[in-house]
Amino acid sequence: MTTHRSSGFDLAVRDARDVRPLESGDRALIEALLRSSTNFTAEESATAMELIDEALAGDPEYIVNVLANDGHIAGYECHGPTPLTEGTYDLYWIVVDPRAQRRGFGKLLLRAAEEDIVRRGGRLLIIETSSQPSYAATVQFYKRSGYTLEARIHNFYRQGDDKLVLTKELHAS
Amino acid sequence: MTTHRSSGFDLAVRDARDVRPLESGDRALIEALLRSSTNFTAEESATAMELIDEALAGDPEYIVNVLANDGHIAGYECHGPTPLTEGTYDLYWIVVDPRAQRRGFGKLLLRAAEEDIVRRGGRLLIIETSSQPSYAATVQFYKRSGYTLEARIHNFYRQGDDKLVLTKELHAS
Repeated sequence: MTTHRSSGFDLAVRDARDVRPLESGDRALIEALLRSSTNFTAEESATAMELIDEALAGDPEYIVNVLANDGHIAGYECHGPTPLTEGTYDLYWIVVDPRAQRRGFGKLLLRAAEEDIVRRGGRLLIIETSSQPSYAATVQFYKRSGYTLEARIHNFYRQGDDKLVLTKELHAS
Repeated sequence: MTTHRSSGFDLAVRDARDVRPLESGDRALIEALLRSSTNFTAEESATAMELIDEALAGDPEYIVNVLANDGHIAGYECHGPTPLTEGTYDLYWIVVDPRAQRRGFGKLLLRAAEEDIVRRGGRLLIIETSSQPSYAATVQFYKRSGYTLEARIHNFYRQGDDKLVLTKELHAS
């Protein structure tokens, strides 16, 4: 017989029922989540927090869903309408707590974003990411989720680090 | 013997000597310039003015040069560092008064942007534009100026209206 120590995530966050819109009380937990994610630089975390603050201030350009239960936040996603387009949306970030990987939480958050966009009449979702090896799993995740590598801007982030643009046509299901 | 009626532009704006950084007194003239340009929708003009206001407020993300002399503004350009990149810049707009086309003013403004970016240590300039026929001359202008069509995002602006991404590597001359 084995005993199984559960983390807070095992106890709290379960499935799509735990996806809900951002609330002001989430801010500190999201800041801590970004700090604990090794994939983000300080500048990227600061940019991510700017979007959170815009969303909390009611800016309709930034829509945030969190995966949360019982005082735990396992991840969040941020998307919004792309300026000067009709029906195109950007997925700005999906962040999942490093301690809560491989449980399908990224997929839950991506689906929440896609469903919200379809509800708002959106037709195209755009994801920009880096060609660096540290993002390879992220790119594979999006490809498995139906995204196509639509474009590459060479040396965009820095010399040798390209921007990849993934897109997916969304349809009401 | 022919008499030759000169417009305000003939009298005033001449060449690269008339390119200078934006000043607060330019705001109303730029607003009028955008209104007179048939290529911009109301939403695009509003977005363009937001960038002007950010630049006037001292936001380092938006740098504006105007082509002006003697109370006339024949055009302007707006560029800035692309967030989360090292040395990449966006050219947001070049606007030339419709009455002052075909005098090389766009070229003067583009050169001013490129020179400013090189001075700041930039290495890559990115221009995003539409695949619509009304932008074909713009795309040709950038290609003649050394820009490469690097990527195309299908149906980005709306169904049937792609985003074209042109890029140019910049080097100190």
